[in-house]
Amino acid sequence: MAEYRQVRDRHSFLEMCQRPDLAAEVTVTAVNRLNADAAIIFADILLPLVPMGVGLHYEKGDGPVIDRPVRSAADLNRIAPISAAESLGFVGESIKLTKAALAGRTPLIGFAGAPFTLASYLIEGGGSRHYRATKTLMYNDPETWERLMRTLVQVTVDYLNMQIISGADVVQLFDSWVGCLGPDDYRRFVLPHSAAVIRALRPGVPVIHFGTDTGTLLELVAEAGGDVIGLDWRVNLGEAWARLGDKVGVQGNLDPVALFANISEIRSRVRTILDQAAGRPGHIFNLGHGILPETPVDHVIALVDAVHEMSKR
Amino acid sequence: MAEYRQVRDRHSFLEMCQRPDLAAEVTVTAVNRLNADAAIIFADILLPLVPMGVGLHYEKGDGPVIDRPVRSAADLNRIAPISAAESLGFVGESIKLTKAALAGRTPLIGFAGAPFTLASYLIEGGGSRHYRATKTLMYNDPETWERLMRTLVQVTVDYLNMQIISGADVVQLFDSWVGCLGPDDYRRFVLPHSAAVIRALRPGVPVIHFGTDTGTLLELVAEAGGDVIGLDWRVNLGEAWARLGDKVGVQGNLDPVALFANISEIRSRVRTILDQAAGRPGHIFNLGHGILPETPVDHVIALVDAVHEMSKR
Repeated sequence: MAEYRQVRDRHSFLEMCQRPDLAAEVTVTAVNRLNADAAIIFADILLPLVPMGVGLHYEKGDGPVIDRPVRSAADLNRIAPISAAESLGFVGESIKLTKAALAGRTPLIGFAGAPFTLASYLIEGGGSRHYRATKTLMYNDPETWERLMRTLVQVTVDYLNMQIISGADVVQLFDSWVGCLGPDDYRRFVLPHSAAVIRALRPGVPVIHFGTDTGTLLELVAEAGGDVIGLDWRVNLGEAWARLGDKVGVQGNLDPVALFANISEIRSRVRTILDQAAGRPGHIFNLGHGILPETPVDHVIALVDAVHEMSKR
Repeated sequence: MAEYRQVRDRHSFLEMCQRPDLAAEVTVTAVNRLNADAAIIFADILLPLVPMGVGLHYEKGDGPVIDRPVRSAADLNRIAPISAAESLGFVGESIKLTKAALAGRTPLIGFAGAPFTLASYLIEGGGSRHYRATKTLMYNDPETWERLMRTLVQVTVDYLNMQIISGADVVQLFDSWVGCLGPDDYRRFVLPHSAAVIRALRPGVPVIHFGTDTGTLLELVAEAGGDVIGLDWRVNLGEAWARLGDKVGVQGNLDPVALFANISEIRSRVRTILDQAAGRPGHIFNLGHGILPETPVDHVIALVDAVHEMSKR
């Protein structure tokens, strides 16, 4: 969105996250322009890594870089303990300012990275294709892996509870990269920790448990917890929901790339997804993963309009 | 392998593919050193794109680059029609030389890229993360997509049949990137074309139909055809095979990254996979995707030994 780029041209990404006035401004502008039914705070799943002292910075166009990756017990010992209230208070402030600006028109979603996904960045030192360092640590040094995950559980619980106290109406746990694992590895190395996060959250706020490439992990992701389970576009929504049962809602599952198709094709895909949801309550229409740069804004507006129009049937 | 790097230091990757003596040498050296039960020709799925005249070259460390991507009907019209016998005859020669050197000790696998995966390279101009150009063409210009796929079906059939005539004992169709699609897109845009390739192959040679990230597509991949279906590490082999039924074999499904684990962990993972196969005939033990650079050779040897030892039980 041009409105976003204007703000972004004047401020670094981290600065925008750390300035509640800017974070609230871009969030509310997007919700208003797109006519979305919910807002999500402007933040990043890696923000907790800044006070942890691993040297996180964002390189132009290349995504996050961590100068001092965590690949051993000794590296892990150097991680600073953090308190979200002290070092991530600006996210709480963003939530308060955004809530005030939304004035009850839509709910506001807070979020955090799940322990596995945070660990993958910490270990790889940034994004990854094969998660070789992450899996190698997991397989060869399970004790350090467990200790790292327990550290990240604490950080994530503290951070999300701070967001809930600040007024988040819903929280979303992003396990964006967990789909690189097979079911056995997920069950052994990830599930207990994601479950520990979700169990420790303050009650009364729904939890969306998000992942991508989780078509073969869905039952395990649901076992870890969450009121709503994220579905990417690789699954048929109806079949996935049947596997998960009716005790959970689902969120998804349009391919973000479909937004580059013409509007008639977009509308046809909306109809297919809504048909699969079959009017059943508990479906949050969303993309299966984050929106891509250069997505035409008018296509996103057409998408939201189509969902509103076809959901009314 | 040091033996491979020595040859590779003196020749470009394309040159190695195009020189049957070198291709045979590195193949046979690897089979002998690893004690594998089958050999696969040294080649690349993109070789047919060279005579098609799209300007394929391999950049140091960055993978394949296509100078003139195919993104419109006009681009497609510029593609040169090819005959595998004329322009890819060196692969047939590689098969004959490799077969002679193997002297019947192991079967030799030929291979080609499946139409979707080839199309994705042609359209993106190289590797991709989101397949945005590929999907956009597919969604917005389905006629050009169909025409491109029909072209690639012809090329692939001609190329694989040439390999079969040259003596390949098995052929493998690599649809490496098809897992970026949801089931509806696979059924509509890919399945008929992969099926057309497999149907048109000369009889008498088993076909391995390989893909990754296909956990939610497996039934459709099998519907497209193949005597053996590839399974990556995201699926439980036993469950996947139960879904596919006993009319097909399966190949897989060790995570290539598991080869960076210690040997005891590797052996434990071999046992898990073999237990899932439960002694049932028709399982080809393999990695779930290609081997990664820097994989310790002694770990690969230990893997092959473990499979041999535990399969004898």
